[in-house]
Amino acid sequence: MKKSNVKKLNDIIDCDVHPHPSDYNVIKSYMSEPWRSRFNGNGKRGIYDNPIHVNRLDSVTPHGGYPCSDPSYMREQLLDEYGINYAILLPRAFATKYPSPDFATVVASAFNDWLADVWLDNNNEDGRCKGSITVAHQDPQAAAKEIDRWAGHPHMVQVMMDSGARAPFGQRQYYPIYEACERNGFPIALHPGTEGVGPNEIMTPGYPTTYIEWHTGLMLSFQAHLISFITEGVFERFPGLKLVLVEGGSAWLPPLLWRLDAEWKPLREEVPWVKKRPSEYILEHVRITSQPLENPDNREHLLQMFEMMDAKNILMFSSDYPHWDFDSPTRSFPKLPEELKKRIFFENARALYNLD
Amino acid sequence: MKKSNVKKLNDIIDCDVHPHPSDYNVIKSYMSEPWRSRFNGNGKRGIYDNPIHVNRLDSVTPHGGYPCSDPSYMREQLLDEYGINYAILLPRAFATKYPSPDFATVVASAFNDWLADVWLDNNNEDGRCKGSITVAHQDPQAAAKEIDRWAGHPHMVQVMMDSGARAPFGQRQYYPIYEACERNGFPIALHPGTEGVGPNEIMTPGYPTTYIEWHTGLMLSFQAHLISFITEGVFERFPGLKLVLVEGGSAWLPPLLWRLDAEWKPLREEVPWVKKRPSEYILEHVRITSQPLENPDNREHLLQMFEMMDAKNILMFSSDYPHWDFDSPTRSFPKLPEELKKRIFFENARALYNLD
Repeated sequence: MKKSNVKKLNDIIDCDVHPHPSDYNVIKSYMSEPWRSRFNGNGKRGIYDNPIHVNRLDSVTPHGGYPCSDPSYMREQLLDEYGINYAILLPRAFATKYPSPDFATVVASAFNDWLADVWLDNNNEDGRCKGSITVAHQDPQAAAKEIDRWAGHPHMVQVMMDSGARAPFGQRQYYPIYEACERNGFPIALHPGTEGVGPNEIMTPGYPTTYIEWHTGLMLSFQAHLISFITEGVFERFPGLKLVLVEGGSAWLPPLLWRLDAEWKPLREEVPWVKKRPSEYILEHVRITSQPLENPDNREHLLQMFEMMDAKNILMFSSDYPHWDFDSPTRSFPKLPEELKKRIFFENARALYNLD
Repeated sequence: MKKSNVKKLNDIIDCDVHPHPSDYNVIKSYMSEPWRSRFNGNGKRGIYDNPIHVNRLDSVTPHGGYPCSDPSYMREQLLDEYGINYAILLPRAFATKYPSPDFATVVASAFNDWLADVWLDNNNEDGRCKGSITVAHQDPQAAAKEIDRWAGHPHMVQVMMDSGARAPFGQRQYYPIYEACERNGFPIALHPGTEGVGPNEIMTPGYPTTYIEWHTGLMLSFQAHLISFITEGVFERFPGLKLVLVEGGSAWLPPLLWRLDAEWKPLREEVPWVKKRPSEYILEHVRITSQPLENPDNREHLLQMFEMMDAKNILMFSSDYPHWDFDSPTRSFPKLPEELKKRIFFENARALYNLD
């Protein structure tokens, strides 16, 4: 295997990289029967599939393998190319697309074993790859056990679940997951992709008809979950919990903060467990990754939006490698003040994930 | 009846005022059997009801009547108090909460007859009250007929439907409504309030548990419908159609514009009927009313947001009288440049509704 060959680390942590099995038989090898025979890969999700292409065309491995399936090629094309110190890996198991909670739990668990074997415990001598523990939120108790199974692993840094769901995530059925995150010191990360797929509700009032409509609407899914986390008082119940919103963009945050604060003031007697202004909980408990970074014609507007959302404390760089809408660490952002750049590209993620 | 007694008109058009029947028997009088016997008023919508109070406590009429049920008291408390030139009236029939499309159509029609009788054709000598034609989108063909019924009425200026729905509004079943709007020169206004009520879908992935969560999420409903209008190409099919988004706030628009433009660029081959950048359609066809106006701690941020959304061309003042979260024409806005103020408070609505 080709080792990393980085000349210089540029103080970058990439908070959204998607490793992929070289072949779905690899994942099967981490399952026992009857699941092994039943699993047939992720394939098309069946409803909202990108009609153009899902991955960067240049991310196919030198041996013709699936994008981001070869740790050494990922290192060459992403980590070394840009001098990235750490990549937070979020495999896409789509475990929540299965109606059976048992099957979903098995799929999540198999992806976790594969991630540890292929990306974290091996092929990772310098420790630059950090992992996310996939859980299936259909069975929160089983998810909590899966989280505990990885407690103390040197490279697992967060828990991840799909934002496609049957209920907003502030609701009580999900609390075993947050309890397990809190007791193990793991942030909980949400990643979109199963909205309206399998048993999951759609994030719009009624079904979108196109991929572009569905994909644009993913930002609404995150906002709905965030409103629920706040109004249900999740951060009062779990004061140690951190929430990471991955791959839903970030510019929607200021209007949402303003709206939440404005609603809370007259209506807070309905939710007495929300003891502080919503924006205070968000600043303390929520982090947002940058990709897909908004790209207004007037880049000054994006800088203003960064100030409104307190990007200095909340925003963390992510590329979404190897997906089609990849954000380059060197080209996607407008010119930032040095301190702000350091916080977004490195310090905020370093502090959240306790990295060196 | 007390006449209006305004000293000075201040060049204000209020684009969201909610007249209410003095008694639901009034509405019944505009229905024939069997509907008359079945109708029992709006009452509680049954799910997401404001636990504090729906209306300004001081808006009860001098005779103890329902807020905004007496044209002369509304004039005194709102139009004359602030020197408002025109009020755009949007009665809340909640016609879309009925599973029966026939009943829904009858309710909408009765509210239209009542609005004309009590607020437009009578008690309106100076013509300062303008009306919205309520339609029930469950039966688009019947809605189109109802729109045609009001063609040429001197004070009906737009068509209104609830944003609670079973499908995003860009979809084809709704086109008879837009055709009727276009041929009669009426903008189509969306107003929230029936999300998750009766046969309508909820705007979040799964049901909210509180009013504050539901009410905060209404801004997501509007965004979902707007994404659908754009990606389905409604404004190419109906080039004369204007869309008014009432009572969902406005600060969410810039991030949505940026996201739509960014998605359209790589994915436009999926939607070849979307021939221009989404933001161009929005600037040309969409207007947004201001209430509930966002209120960040730093008012400078709101002015920046106005620039990002092109408020000068898109935003129209509204108070939402007599509801609890009323925005005052004199106190809700930060200090605006004179030209911008004139556009938001008067000119944009004057041009849209062809008022003097």
